[in-house]
Amino acid sequence: MKGDVYYGKGIRELEGQYPDLYELVSDMNSTVWEGKILDYKTQKLIAIGITASRADPRATKKQIKSAIEVLGISKDEIVDVLRVVLLTSGMPAFSKSLQILNSVLETMD
Amino acid sequence: MKGDVYYGKGIRELEGQYPDLYELVSDMNSTVWEGKILDYKTQKLIAIGITASRADPRATKKQIKSAIEVLGISKDEIVDVLRVVLLTSGMPAFSKSLQILNSVLETMD
Amino acid sequence: MKGDVYYGKGIRELEGQYPDLYELVSDMNSTVWEGKILDYKTQKLIAIGITASRADPRATKKQIKSAIEVLGISKDEIVDVLRVVLLTSGMPAFSKSLQILNSVLETMD
Amino acid sequence: MKGDVYYGKGIRELEGQYPDLYELVSDMNSTVWEGKILDYKTQKLIAIGITASRADPRATKKQIKSAIEVLGISKDEIVDVLRVVLLTSGMPAFSKSLQILNSVLETMD
Amino acid sequence: MKGDVYYGKGIRELEGQYPDLYELVSDMNSTVWEGKILDYKTQKLIAIGITASRADPRATKKQIKSAIEVLGISKDEIVDVLRVVLLTSGMPAFSKSLQILNSVLETMD
Amino acid sequence: MKGDVYYGKGIRELEGQYPDLYELVSDMNSTVWEGKILDYKTQKLIAIGITASRADPRATKKQIKSAIEVLGISKDEIVDVLRVVLLTSGMPAFSKSLQILNSVLETMD
Repeated sequence: MKGDVYYGKGIRELEGQYPDLYELVSDMNSTVWEGKILDYKTQKLIAIGITASRADPRATKKQIKSAIEVLGISKDEIVDVLRVVLLTSGMPAFSKSLQILNSVLETMD
Repeated sequence: MKGDVYYGKGIRELEGQYPDLYELVSDMNSTVWEGKILDYKTQKLIAIGITASRADPRATKKQIKSAIEVLGISKDEIVDVLRVVLLTSGMPAFSKSLQILNSVLETMD
Repeated sequence: MKGDVYYGKGIRELEGQYPDLYELVSDMNSTVWEGKILDYKTQKLIAIGITASRADPRATKKQIKSAIEVLGISKDEIVDVLRVVLLTSGMPAFSKSLQILNSVLETMD
Repeated sequence: MKGDVYYGKGIRELEGQYPDLYELVSDMNSTVWEGKILDYKTQKLIAIGITASRADPRATKKQIKSAIEVLGISKDEIVDVLRVVLLTSGMPAFSKSLQILNSVLETMD
Repeated sequence: MKGDVYYGKGIRELEGQYPDLYELVSDMNSTVWEGKILDYKTQKLIAIGITASRADPRATKKQIKSAIEVLGISKDEIVDVLRVVLLTSGMPAFSKSLQILNSVLETMD
Repeated sequence: MKGDVYYGKGIRELEGQYPDLYELVSDMNSTVWEGKILDYKTQKLIAIGITASRADPRATKKQIKSAIEVLGISKDEIVDVLRVVLLTSGMPAFSKSLQILNSVLETMD
């Protein structure tokens, strides 16, 4: 399922112990990624933009990794997202996200 | 020019008094919005996502307004962006952005 | 229902046009506020702390208003929350939240 | 003293070199945690909510650790705090905080 | 006293009802603004930078106003601070702060 | 050049592959650090304040390191900046930045 790529270990462990929370998280994922008009790829690019603009390394890495591995999004496309991050959020967020993108690409070679 | 729609009064007044800053801001706009692969519309959707996720009312309103007026982006498309905001940034950012979207649409009728 | 007090106009309007999002928002509210151990009041105090620490005036006002009106939470209790905001988030967030608290109390007299 | 559990190495080293800052930090701690009405435990839960909502790993870990070790706060109680984080701050903050909670619990077994 | 210019109505009203909090806020102000080396003006410029970088309109306005009125800091100096805001925090924070600066200057003419 | 000290590996690698972005980043750096009135050192102190107030460890470390190595800014001066961070942004940002400052100083002995 679309949202699955997003789950970390913490979320997966919810299933047994907090089933109501696990179900909610699943519902959030399926409702959110099933946009009426925009396709999954465009929504994914938006998610990369949001996490990168917050200079949140863990979430940015997760989003970039699943974008490349699951959706085949290219480096150039992600750099286009980071252009918007540079404008709206400044150099530290841009520079950190660029470094994350490069390190994700290196581990995939 | 693409970036122009983004300029508030503060930026426009830079031109006379701080020409170096005005030129930099123009350069930032043209370089950022000229992505290699993604089109202007997709980058605009990303910018909406970023400003909306910060619950920044002024910038969100600006981005949504120019998205609708200049690029003809539809309400459904923006709601698809806000789905990602709900997931990544929570209810207050989602709810506030939804309210901004509705109020922008009302003033355009 | 518990979550209802939280809904702004934007959320209520979702019901007709985006029923999947409206249902998700309802599910989020009911799952979140039904903690296993902590009562609704304690969770509400936490929500005030989070929105106040972000100096988010709209969400802070909403949380404080419903805390006082629906749950009968006292001024002293909310000031105790704002003590933690002062420590963790600094003076501007504390000072702004205090002002919001005072203005909510004034409109209720 | 209540606040002591919160001090990192940086703060402790203030004592010799910047005594005015050390005294201020001590005053902040004692004034903040001595709420008029709310007990220390409730204020602690609020502090966890605030740091978790910012996806600030270092401060979240500190707060969760001292909550469990000093105040005997349970996993279920902290998950109830994180429910509010999920609603107000979105999935990445929730998921990261959950992971921190799990890793703190593992090191205590 | 140095810190006084910073107090909003919310803080001033603490004095009667929450004297422990009022005293703490006074202590924070006097300890913080009495740096060992940097003068008050430089610290003030730093405070403008921090509040402006958060696109926090209320606190930015307060800092800019007291910087101009109490310390005679010039428009050019504040624009130099905003240059750093543009680099570290992006266009929306820069543009909003510029607008605040201009509107503060207009009301002083 | 002034801005150079700021570049991480991610930025330097832009030069070959995304020359338009590399040129923009260079332009941003030279325009920003060439304030009309404030000297480079004061602007650097402001940049430390902004990144420290966000509790952004990577950017704070970078700014503090180049401040000490390139500009000979003293520990006491940086602690004066962190005083403003404590007031405007709270204890976790202050405490984390203090720890970063101490660890940078240790590696330089």
